[in-house]
Amino acid sequence: MERLSQTNLYIALLHHPVINKRGNVITSAVTNLDLHDISRIARTYGVKRFYVVTPLADQQQITRRIVSYWVTGGGAGYNPDRRDALKTVRVESDLKDVITHISSVEHQTPVTVATRAGKAVDGSKRITFQNLKKRIKATKPHLITLGTAWGLSAGVIRSADYCLEPISGVDNYNHLSVRSAAAIILDRLLQR
Amino acid sequence: MERLSQTNLYIALLHHPVINKRGNVITSAVTNLDLHDISRIARTYGVKRFYVVTPLADQQQITRRIVSYWVTGGGAGYNPDRRDALKTVRVESDLKDVITHISSVEHQTPVTVATRAGKAVDGSKRITFQNLKKRIKATKPHLITLGTAWGLSAGVIRSADYCLEPISGVDNYNHLSVRSAAAIILDRLLQR
Repeated sequence: MERLSQTNLYIALLHHPVINKRGNVITSAVTNLDLHDISRIARTYGVKRFYVVTPLADQQQITRRIVSYWVTGGGAGYNPDRRDALKTVRVESDLKDVITHISSVEHQTPVTVATRAGKAVDGSKRITFQNLKKRIKATKPHLITLGTAWGLSAGVIRSADYCLEPISGVDNYNHLSVRSAAAIILDRLLQR
Repeated sequence: MERLSQTNLYIALLHHPVINKRGNVITSAVTNLDLHDISRIARTYGVKRFYVVTPLADQQQITRRIVSYWVTGGGAGYNPDRRDALKTVRVESDLKDVITHISSVEHQTPVTVATRAGKAVDGSKRITFQNLKKRIKATKPHLITLGTAWGLSAGVIRSADYCLEPISGVDNYNHLSVRSAAAIILDRLLQR
């Protein structure tokens, strides 16, 4: 996988701490289609690794089972393209472990970039797509974090180095699935 | 919905005639998440209507049931953003009916643009994202067709006015889900 990468970019899909409809911090369930769709996007754009982050042991286990079915099990022969995509997945318990893993691979700490569909969070530092596109061409590794459910907690956004500007369409409607947001974000940052 | 539209663009998701892994023409099943993800993308970018196309009566029925749950049923109050998205959906039996419907609304025939991840089909006319972006700003309505399963049949591609160039990532890997392709295509064509 690494040989194909042409970016210094990592992505992480968080299932905790994310917020629900009422803004409370929750832990969401892993969605099978997120693994497939987002790993295929990651592989398409040469993202180095797609971290699936959940603190729940049973959710980690089922995620690893799905991934291994497609990477080394019955799915690998049936659909090698899925294998290539799902090979990018790595399960971690929390964001700290993701950063530790990237740091051990890269020998430097990644720059963290949170994403959010809504208004800016106080204390976070906004970055535009254009500026992030320039930044990720530099040598430092970058980690983009995506939230499931109603999005990342304010704590995750505040603790990131940057928060990416939201994707905007024709008006204020801003309710894409995290799968669609991942596709658009990576295309804007990495398309040739 | 119409009042919010700022484009003259329509999209259609075909479940027939599409091809399977071996290249045979099949009819695929409607996927619930396609309805949600693609309608949310359509609404975000001001697409006029998202046609879900299947010749199977039971599939049409279940699609209409899902849509009406979110547009007028229990889901409408629970999540008005989903209502706004799913309001863009209209079920049709085949591509001809889609074109007839658009023609009746627009009082002119739409320009049809097929999509395809692979190599060009003999007899089809390729168009780049850049050129299509210019074209859709003109007054003529455009219809972009997307294929489920392994993609649109060669017949659909050949009968379209244009075939859009594929989305390319870092190398030849080209296996995005139709949901991701829809997100990227509309963002490239319609982002502000």
